[in-house]
Amino acid sequence: MPRMVDTPAVAVDLDRLQANIRDMALFARDAGVALRPHVKAHKIKEIARQQKEAGAVGVTVAKLGEAEVMVEAGITDILIAYQVIGEVKLRRLADLVRRAKVTVAVDSIAGARELSMLAQTVGQSLQVVIEVDTGLKRCGVLPGEETLALARQLLGMAGLQFAGIMTHAGHVYGAASSAEVAAIGQQEGELMVAAANLLRSQGIGVEVVSVGSTPTAKIAGLVPGVTEIRPGNYVFYDAIQHGLGVVALERCALSIWTTVISKPAPGRLVVDAGSKTFALDRGAHGNAVVQGHGVIKGYPGLTLTRLSEEHGIIEGEPLVTALVEVGQQLEVIPNHACPVINLTDQVLVTKREEVVGVWPVDARGQVR
Amino acid sequence: MPRMVDTPAVAVDLDRLQANIRDMALFARDAGVALRPHVKAHKIKEIARQQKEAGAVGVTVAKLGEAEVMVEAGITDILIAYQVIGEVKLRRLADLVRRAKVTVAVDSIAGARELSMLAQTVGQSLQVVIEVDTGLKRCGVLPGEETLALARQLLGMAGLQFAGIMTHAGHVYGAASSAEVAAIGQQEGELMVAAANLLRSQGIGVEVVSVGSTPTAKIAGLVPGVTEIRPGNYVFYDAIQHGLGVVALERCALSIWTTVISKPAPGRLVVDAGSKTFALDRGAHGNAVVQGHGVIKGYPGLTLTRLSEEHGIIEGEPLVTALVEVGQQLEVIPNHACPVINLTDQVLVTKREEVVGVWPVDARGQVR
Repeated sequence: MPRMVDTPAVAVDLDRLQANIRDMALFARDAGVALRPHVKAHKIKEIARQQKEAGAVGVTVAKLGEAEVMVEAGITDILIAYQVIGEVKLRRLADLVRRAKVTVAVDSIAGARELSMLAQTVGQSLQVVIEVDTGLKRCGVLPGEETLALARQLLGMAGLQFAGIMTHAGHVYGAASSAEVAAIGQQEGELMVAAANLLRSQGIGVEVVSVGSTPTAKIAGLVPGVTEIRPGNYVFYDAIQHGLGVVALERCALSIWTTVISKPAPGRLVVDAGSKTFALDRGAHGNAVVQGHGVIKGYPGLTLTRLSEEHGIIEGEPLVTALVEVGQQLEVIPNHACPVINLTDQVLVTKREEVVGVWPVDARGQVR
Repeated sequence: MPRMVDTPAVAVDLDRLQANIRDMALFARDAGVALRPHVKAHKIKEIARQQKEAGAVGVTVAKLGEAEVMVEAGITDILIAYQVIGEVKLRRLADLVRRAKVTVAVDSIAGARELSMLAQTVGQSLQVVIEVDTGLKRCGVLPGEETLALARQLLGMAGLQFAGIMTHAGHVYGAASSAEVAAIGQQEGELMVAAANLLRSQGIGVEVVSVGSTPTAKIAGLVPGVTEIRPGNYVFYDAIQHGLGVVALERCALSIWTTVISKPAPGRLVVDAGSKTFALDRGAHGNAVVQGHGVIKGYPGLTLTRLSEEHGIIEGEPLVTALVEVGQQLEVIPNHACPVINLTDQVLVTKREEVVGVWPVDARGQVR
């Protein structure tokens, strides 16, 4: 029995990771936009440092807890692309703004009022951006009159410094083709620039026009007037990004190593990684862009068809499953890298399939 | 602004939890079967101790890591209802069998051989049970000739002590009605007793006839000849169990507290808990038994329709969403309690909606 890694394990290919980091940084430099990567994709201090070193102006986070970890990592320019609501959170935010340059998203007057009170209490102005809904139908005001109305309100609130507008075109994950991805990215950029220009036409200064998402970053980022891109997933990519036509599989840097624990019937294998390792994400449109729960490297005839929490069920032609033995390790590119990272305490760092280090997932589970 | 809990937070209602623990223990006592709860549902030492105090003979775990945590909690009789495969795992198992009475599931000759070598190395016999597939089509040999053939092989392997057979009728989560649940539970028990009797007719002693799953425990557990039940989820129950007709919603002990962070459009609310808190489980048959991603207490007209990682989108009639304010906290019963527990580092312990304590989720993330 060869001496192997205990499984399931999550592994990051260092060369691919660094190529992905470089590639997006070069794109941003050439396009003349700021790169502010969303760290929710990796949650790892060391990767955030590498992104900064490659040229990122700062980072984006969803939750205050992620921001707190990034400040510990020495990142001092942070966009919280999220509505910060509630007394406990405002106290934590007050502490954070003393330690870093923090910008907060806002999409309601109720939320803005709380931030204004906070800024006055702390005695320090707080930078805000308006979250704009360019089609995801999640948070955000609509571009146009709604954005203008909220901007006017913000300008009248003590302690708030209005910096601009941001959006996340997450509905791109429902796209069925790369042409549709391109159309959504183009629209994302154009809607945002038009919204910014509407505000400017009313005498409101707009410094930041920030767009997001890995699939649209290189499309919206080229729309003249966009000032910032916030891709996150691009450090790893995954089977969903591949399915959307964003990258070749060979650029996916994150994989799951798992061991075959059972061959209970012809055509069926069971591995020791389930939804507690892979998560259940299949993309916004179910099976549209992915097949099963990941891509099994080296076995195009096998599909990871079902997941229990601790079991993955692989199916294929009996002649193919017969080639795999109990105890054999398989490598799988997950559908969605972000929740995989959130489920693991650490990742193995690999170079040409050799483990060269281990990184803790510093901001894992920071949902608050 | 009232002083509230930071959200999202996972809360356990202590009275409901203890009533659920008592109820299943009483069932097992009255039915004359051993209760060996699966701790994957809660992963919390304190709950395992309460289960033992209420009469559990020991616990069931999926992974070695869970077993290691349970040994720390003072539980000394553990069934690993999982194929233990691979060199690193066997070394860990060798360490574990020195500290507790451990039984391991096996469904292949390859797996059994490794366990036999281990037992000989450690110089201590290892108790094994055969995992039988009663319809889930995951791991396990088929009841009947396959089970008999594997049992015969095990009897010939040095160091292994054959204790009996176990199954998990997880396909019950695909049931569309409580009548179907009952039929699957009855079949689970009958198939297992028939398999045990076949082995006995060939002179093979079968001490353990163990069945599992919360929905089927009280059905299969009543089939004469079944000796043990292994429900897990029953300590909490959840919206899927309710949807299957297993219990009333009022017995669900686990809930998620979340804050409304945005009211971006009529008929839509956004809360600060997403798939990183709720997980994406919708039951084996999609929307068959649940509606949306959880049950929002007190608002039957609202549905948690979509989850991003950090956002939950709630939809309903505009007249209903208008009643909820940004900053308001909502309580949601999740679809599937087990992955919710695996996503959180701690749970709030509550009594009549007051927080009376905090329990760490000791075995969270133990996938190895």
